[in-house]
Amino acid sequence: MSYQPDPVSGACVAESLALFRQHAPLVHCMTNEVVQSFTANVLLALGASPAMVIDAEEAAQFSAIASALLVNVGTLTRDRADAMQAAIAAACQAQTPWTLDPVAVGGLTFRSAFCHQLLSQQPAAIRGNASEILALAQHAARGRGVDSLHDSASALTAAQQLAARSGAVVAVTGVVDYVTDGQRTLAVPGGSALMTRVVGTGCALSAVVAGFAALPGDRLQHVASACRVVSCAGERATARASGPGSFIPAFLDALYLLDTEALQ
Amino acid sequence: MSYQPDPVSGACVAESLALFRQHAPLVHCMTNEVVQSFTANVLLALGASPAMVIDAEEAAQFSAIASALLVNVGTLTRDRADAMQAAIAAACQAQTPWTLDPVAVGGLTFRSAFCHQLLSQQPAAIRGNASEILALAQHAARGRGVDSLHDSASALTAAQQLAARSGAVVAVTGVVDYVTDGQRTLAVPGGSALMTRVVGTGCALSAVVAGFAALPGDRLQHVASACRVVSCAGERATARASGPGSFIPAFLDALYLLDTEALQ
Amino acid sequence: MSYQPDPVSGACVAESLALFRQHAPLVHCMTNEVVQSFTANVLLALGASPAMVIDAEEAAQFSAIASALLVNVGTLTRDRADAMQAAIAAACQAQTPWTLDPVAVGGLTFRSAFCHQLLSQQPAAIRGNASEILALAQHAARGRGVDSLHDSASALTAAQQLAARSGAVVAVTGVVDYVTDGQRTLAVPGGSALMTRVVGTGCALSAVVAGFAALPGDRLQHVASACRVVSCAGERATARASGPGSFIPAFLDALYLLDTEALQ
Repeated sequence: MSYQPDPVSGACVAESLALFRQHAPLVHCMTNEVVQSFTANVLLALGASPAMVIDAEEAAQFSAIASALLVNVGTLTRDRADAMQAAIAAACQAQTPWTLDPVAVGGLTFRSAFCHQLLSQQPAAIRGNASEILALAQHAARGRGVDSLHDSASALTAAQQLAARSGAVVAVTGVVDYVTDGQRTLAVPGGSALMTRVVGTGCALSAVVAGFAALPGDRLQHVASACRVVSCAGERATARASGPGSFIPAFLDALYLLDTEALQ
Repeated sequence: MSYQPDPVSGACVAESLALFRQHAPLVHCMTNEVVQSFTANVLLALGASPAMVIDAEEAAQFSAIASALLVNVGTLTRDRADAMQAAIAAACQAQTPWTLDPVAVGGLTFRSAFCHQLLSQQPAAIRGNASEILALAQHAARGRGVDSLHDSASALTAAQQLAARSGAVVAVTGVVDYVTDGQRTLAVPGGSALMTRVVGTGCALSAVVAGFAALPGDRLQHVASACRVVSCAGERATARASGPGSFIPAFLDALYLLDTEALQ
Repeated sequence: MSYQPDPVSGACVAESLALFRQHAPLVHCMTNEVVQSFTANVLLALGASPAMVIDAEEAAQFSAIASALLVNVGTLTRDRADAMQAAIAAACQAQTPWTLDPVAVGGLTFRSAFCHQLLSQQPAAIRGNASEILALAQHAARGRGVDSLHDSASALTAAQQLAARSGAVVAVTGVVDYVTDGQRTLAVPGGSALMTRVVGTGCALSAVVAGFAALPGDRLQHVASACRVVSCAGERATARASGPGSFIPAFLDALYLLDTEALQ
């Protein structure tokens, strides 16, 4: 796993985005309280249909008919965890692909146990920052007695191992995003520092990943494309913004207006 | 019920808006998690006072002193449903008019049963899109053995029947909005396609409807005015926006700046 | 307590803000559903790290490692109250300073009892509007048989008494903000009327107060600085805005760009 990851190609990203807009996936978002509105607006700007359904019974009904399910544990509660479990079970039965955003996993006991438990339920994709992916991979590793991860293993190696173990496409995002299925890995450049001064850019990316992961074709390519779509819109918004406040409308506009030319 | 609905008059809309700003209604919003902030900002921009109070005991206390109550089932849970019931009971006792937004009714079992149950509790107004109004009217109809609605009945006819049965002014919104009390029907033009790419425009409209429905005078006229106020602000914002991101601040500004000239 | 409060000095505000940016406090926000996103964006724009953790067990874990804890009762529920209690207990044990925003205290029974109960748990700061501070101080006073507050006592006097009793720095905000520790009182000018037409400006200020209250040095000075930072950004945003919609991005940009020159 020491090879240099290939960069994602602009042409492939444009192709995935065209497919996304054509399919306009219905994305069932079970996400945290802080980012629900921004997440919905990001999906709408890209042409998808977001829906937030949270009661356990309704969430199970809905995830069976949605195109994709997102599970984000940012403001997890006992009730919400039960509803997420119900939704994931129904999604798996209906073959609705589901995506995990393991917000702040590692430091907090309840969500850490919950996320590790979910790994056995065949997530289509996982999107996290380096420390989240390391925490998720390390714990799994620890359970298997693999202690080497505890030292200086990079998040990329952890992501590749997590992908191989869980069957998910794993995106570890940061200054460069890496997207891997355990065998192949793509590197996604771009984005801007200003994106870290706006709440929900990472969480909204996970919702976009959830939608792209539901498209027919090469899931690795689609998830990498989701990352590039968001980082490209982030760059264009940063160029127009005076700060994090003006970034937000510019970012949604950029997602809405994104075209093949911008992506290449 | 085959006559052509009259268009709402700009002069009447301006009059209702002036009355709204004068009364500055205190609107108790029990709405979904996704749109709470946007809903509050829409009401504030129009000069009303929004308040979100959600504990069952507090919601009952508060709806008794509020000018109006909004119940929106977008992210319904068991706890929230109980609190809404308590608030509606207190509102009815205190003669606080309450408005129902039956988000996604029809497809999901729990909220469908809940919404149909609420119809007997004298809502002042109901605001939904065509499929929601059809679902709400059809179910009521089915219960009464009226099967004709199940085929190609238009949402307008369904809205008129729902209004006649429930006693509510019903607004069915879309490219053209229709507002009816079962006897009279007004047509409200305007709005823009961009409004469908921003989360919460429909939900916020329901909050505005709730506030206008509490004004003294002709409720049908006031609810149609609420629809026109929002569609007019949507047009003006679309003219200034580059996409759904810049639409949001432009829309709130337009609501804040809306004057008689714009409405005529 | 009849002296004229001193105005906060621009040089001191600039100094507190520099310290805030240097420390980049991790602010654990247990706040209401309506303002979570805006609150996080305000803290991010100022260089802090917001985190919303709400499950009782996780909230207790997290408040022990956070720099500061905010408790805002705007959309209080029984579950959330229990989680807040757990977080405050852990914060007190870990010496994490915590701040109370007693939204709408006085009028609603459940939150009023809850807030009064919290006063004995050593809040570092309390931020409210005049009627909230009066309600919080009056109840405490009533319990001690001090009825004089029930007539025309000013919120300033109530704030001074509340500070003396609770040990908190109390900020009562309005056209002029007053910040007091019961002995010394500072006056903070500025802000704009447009801020009252945007939801969450007061709640977000409380989160900023929570972060500033955790800085080393003179807490009274820091809390007054927090108020001035927000009122100054509000003025600058108002100068650029056409209404409450365009105010929001301009306000976040102003917080992000605020420098010593602007504050003096």
